[in-house]
Amino acid sequence: MSVLTQDAPDGESAIAQPARQIHIKPSRLQRYIPLLRWLPAYRRADLPQDLIAGVITAIMLVPQSMAYAQLAGLPPQVGLYATILPIAVYALLGTSGQLSVGPAAITSLAVLAGVGALAAPGTPRYLELVVALTFMVGIIKVVLGILRLGMALNFVSAPVLSGFMSAAAIVIMVSQLKHLLGFNVAGKAVHEQLYAAAAHIGETNPATLAIALVSILILLMFKRGSLQTLLEKLGVPPRLRTLTSSLSLFVVLVLGTALTAMLRLDVSLGVKTVGEIPTGLPSLASPSLSLADAGVLAPTAMTIVFIGVVESVSIARALASKHRQRIDPDQELIALGAANLAASLSAAYPVAGGLARSMVNNEAGARTGLASLVTATMMSATLAFLTPLFYYLPQAVLASIVVVAVSGLFDLSEARRLYRLQRSDFLTWLATFIVTLGVNIEAGILTGVVLSLLLFLWRTSRPRVVEIGRIPGTHIFLNVDHHDTETRESVVALRVDESLYFANARYLEDRVLEVVAARATVRHLVLNCSAINSVDTTAIEALHALREELRDAGVELHLASPKRWVLTRLEQAGFIAAVGPDHIHRSMDEAFRAIEARLTISSGQFPHRTKDMAI
Amino acid sequence: MSVLTQDAPDGESAIAQPARQIHIKPSRLQRYIPLLRWLPAYRRADLPQDLIAGVITAIMLVPQSMAYAQLAGLPPQVGLYATILPIAVYALLGTSGQLSVGPAAITSLAVLAGVGALAAPGTPRYLELVVALTFMVGIIKVVLGILRLGMALNFVSAPVLSGFMSAAAIVIMVSQLKHLLGFNVAGKAVHEQLYAAAAHIGETNPATLAIALVSILILLMFKRGSLQTLLEKLGVPPRLRTLTSSLSLFVVLVLGTALTAMLRLDVSLGVKTVGEIPTGLPSLASPSLSLADAGVLAPTAMTIVFIGVVESVSIARALASKHRQRIDPDQELIALGAANLAASLSAAYPVAGGLARSMVNNEAGARTGLASLVTATMMSATLAFLTPLFYYLPQAVLASIVVVAVSGLFDLSEARRLYRLQRSDFLTWLATFIVTLGVNIEAGILTGVVLSLLLFLWRTSRPRVVEIGRIPGTHIFLNVDHHDTETRESVVALRVDESLYFANARYLEDRVLEVVAARATVRHLVLNCSAINSVDTTAIEALHALREELRDAGVELHLASPKRWVLTRLEQAGFIAAVGPDHIHRSMDEAFRAIEARLTISSGQFPHRTKDMAI
Repeated sequence: MSVLTQDAPDGESAIAQPARQIHIKPSRLQRYIPLLRWLPAYRRADLPQDLIAGVITAIMLVPQSMAYAQLAGLPPQVGLYATILPIAVYALLGTSGQLSVGPAAITSLAVLAGVGALAAPGTPRYLELVVALTFMVGIIKVVLGILRLGMALNFVSAPVLSGFMSAAAIVIMVSQLKHLLGFNVAGKAVHEQLYAAAAHIGETNPATLAIALVSILILLMFKRGSLQTLLEKLGVPPRLRTLTSSLSLFVVLVLGTALTAMLRLDVSLGVKTVGEIPTGLPSLASPSLSLADAGVLAPTAMTIVFIGVVESVSIARALASKHRQRIDPDQELIALGAANLAASLSAAYPVAGGLARSMVNNEAGARTGLASLVTATMMSATLAFLTPLFYYLPQAVLASIVVVAVSGLFDLSEARRLYRLQRSDFLTWLATFIVTLGVNIEAGILTGVVLSLLLFLWRTSRPRVVEIGRIPGTHIFLNVDHHDTETRESVVALRVDESLYFANARYLEDRVLEVVAARATVRHLVLNCSAINSVDTTAIEALHALREELRDAGVELHLASPKRWVLTRLEQAGFIAAVGPDHIHRSMDEAFRAIEARLTISSGQFPHRTKDMAI
Repeated sequence: MSVLTQDAPDGESAIAQPARQIHIKPSRLQRYIPLLRWLPAYRRADLPQDLIAGVITAIMLVPQSMAYAQLAGLPPQVGLYATILPIAVYALLGTSGQLSVGPAAITSLAVLAGVGALAAPGTPRYLELVVALTFMVGIIKVVLGILRLGMALNFVSAPVLSGFMSAAAIVIMVSQLKHLLGFNVAGKAVHEQLYAAAAHIGETNPATLAIALVSILILLMFKRGSLQTLLEKLGVPPRLRTLTSSLSLFVVLVLGTALTAMLRLDVSLGVKTVGEIPTGLPSLASPSLSLADAGVLAPTAMTIVFIGVVESVSIARALASKHRQRIDPDQELIALGAANLAASLSAAYPVAGGLARSMVNNEAGARTGLASLVTATMMSATLAFLTPLFYYLPQAVLASIVVVAVSGLFDLSEARRLYRLQRSDFLTWLATFIVTLGVNIEAGILTGVVLSLLLFLWRTSRPRVVEIGRIPGTHIFLNVDHHDTETRESVVALRVDESLYFANARYLEDRVLEVVAARATVRHLVLNCSAINSVDTTAIEALHALREELRDAGVELHLASPKRWVLTRLEQAGFIAAVGPDHIHRSMDEAFRAIEARLTISSGQFPHRTKDMAI
């Protein structure tokens, strides 16, 4: 296993010699098919690592893909189908050498929730709709990528994602109750299922529950329990320890299946198993999508696109940076979209990058897309030869894999952190969480995105406007409320801490005029513009109005330290000419000196309105 | 008329002695009922001006209110009813002494478009719905005002308002074709009406058209034509000249009515007249509003609230500032809401502040709400005694008043200006214009608001990130692309020109990592934060990720010139501790000096990665 640890202890080699430098002017074709970049430059030294990473990821993917398919209300082979063509296509088009594409927890939940509302899981119509949905997801991602609209996904803020994930984790865990307890739990909403489970708790199948509990225990032990501590004490390198999480899935799969098969628990104790899985690769078929179906599937498709891409790109970005590589979010959209199109061709369901799997892939040493190609080959072999072995695999084992996988998504400490740091972000988290849990996941994510945007807009619509004054003897101007400053009765200086645009232009105008209305002695108003990054036409109009209103009130407006682009825009709009070029100052200090000079010339008696200032 | 001009030539007295200073700590009651502030402090000197302004505004309001009622598809008395209680209530609660509340052009159009889709104008059901709508408008405004949500109206940007007004002007003018031509023009959409008018142009009533053309000619002459030039040459003061626009409406009303009555044009030539108007004040009745009606009227109500308040507050603000007074937007919302509630009680229709009327009111010398009380009294007298005089008033005269009033709203030069200044604002104008004209006014304003917000968000989601370098021999750091700067191979300095929030945090992270990925020699990255006004939790997370990613790539992150609030937020989130307090610098200069010192200590050979920097 020296291959896995050769970079240790400090990861130096990966940093010093980037395996997959992206910004070396790729050709147009290379840009759209990154494989053409890394394959010709492939270094033989990377081969063993890519091979081993591919195999290890496949070992994790076999049970995981079947477990997520079960979560999505689909037969296990659909999960396996989602791991061949999609992974190969991503290897061809993706810009990350570490991202492991395939079935994912939240995507599976979204499929169940969205399509489950239109058809009963297990029916041919359900499968048909899932394939149509996968096709839609693929098309949307590819189009967003080609239009280079990947940026749009940044509008999902971290609190929205966290609140959503936490609620989704609960929804997913509750959805697995029926497999863990071994009886049919009625209801769709979380509270309905919880109530049904509690009401019929007597129908629990003890053997099923026992298998589930033991599986969960084993998985948790591997994940973060005593086993990890033990391995650490034994001096096993961290990289190797992480890999045990891949093997843990394999362990519960083998144990659960062997035990059930040997004791015929399915017959003797009524443990539900996976049963027969068709052997052989999926046959390709072009998906059909009616306009009516597209309409009803659209919200689900958008949710899957948002969540899938936000998660995948976050993972890919984090892993790439460890190797001093860059991923291209728009190309990632295209690659993920193509992977989903491939999934729809092979009668599979939507795929995305999986966090745990990608971590394992990376830790196992994946350097390029070759690792993914190896994984895809392994999965083909599994489908071609090994599916009969899964006949006795208990559904409870798969449910346990799902439950442990998503248990880490529930993150109440993040909510506490947000509450402490920023109330508005906490509010967003909470609203997303509640709506996701109480209504559905599409409504949850929509609520979160819209609310976070509204809160941002509301914040920017009420910019901080502080009065500033000179710190005596310096050129520094600071908040008069927090510092001892020099001020003059006839001059007031304000600093605006926000770019000016339509939503706050009026507010600024109001605030400034309020200050002036409250001080009859003011004759000059200096606006410090150093924190104003842009102005739009509404803001310029407000500035024009402000200037006129101030003039009518006998007050002159000055601007200090405007940025170059702001100044250019103001000039084009005629504002500089209107206010007078001598009223624009490069710094607060220059503004004050210019005003002092004028006050001294015009009149010695103060406060006295002189003709030249009243206009 | 010396009273009207006594402030001339420079408006000195109004400025030196504010008539209605608002910010002198009013009591709670005085805040909600501004009349309690200005009435006890009323100066006898203001009385003649307020009286004359009230009378002159009433002279304008009589024909205008009937004209706008006709535009709204309502009988003329409904317009007159809207001028008594609503005006009196506004005088009690409003914070502007100049704003003239009453029927307004766009509001009238919105009533016709919104309620006209639910019931035929002229039917009792139409009137019932209009009163219910008025009640809703009042409630919404009052609630917004009490919740102090007046700020929400700032989200209507100037381009949206301008595009909307321009389209509305066309819609209004086309809607008046039937009155101007004297035959029934079928259709609701603009293009339908234009087509119908053209197809049946032979049915035009020549006498009606003649009356309309002469009226329009007279009105335009008074407004901006040769008469104004003549008066100017004769040395008539500008204030007095503006008042002629009030009288012009009265002139066409008297001329048109007298001519029609004397020649019995209604009988001889088929000129349609206003006919019988019920004499007497409106009887008060509480409006009824069913939940179903509220649902269908909601979009229209919201449109009227938005447009009415945005316009009214703009006018009030502009006029108040001329007198160095301040208006309180939230109190204005309450006052306008109460005025609409009063309108719904007196079987009238929605009211708002009118631009032309308020200008006249102001020019005529209105100082306080007393002017409005005088207007309301005059209107009561009109309704009580004068309505029989309007029997022969041709509808074409009223239509002419509407057409001339709104002709100034169409503003193509604004569109040209926006095109030149800012493409995104032009796009907003155009979209609002097209949708208002082609679909309807609710869709138009909604399109404009949503589009302008999305464009703003899109802009802020891609902040300017510029590389800066030291201007040799100074402490000034400027854009390396525009200036000759000193740079060092191992250090890169970036300035971000935007506050950091969820929509741009990832983008910044990408941009920074791109720069680092492209330069293998970089060991220190300095982020200039002077233009960052705020950071949210997503941005802090991105900064954390950025720091880790840079660390993994052997690059240290430094922050220079962060603002106090940003620093506090970063500290609370543990970022300062993570990045190291010695990596936060008060200025770019200090940052560079600190880095230089470390580079010199750690190694003479450059570029060579030293252990302490790789971490």
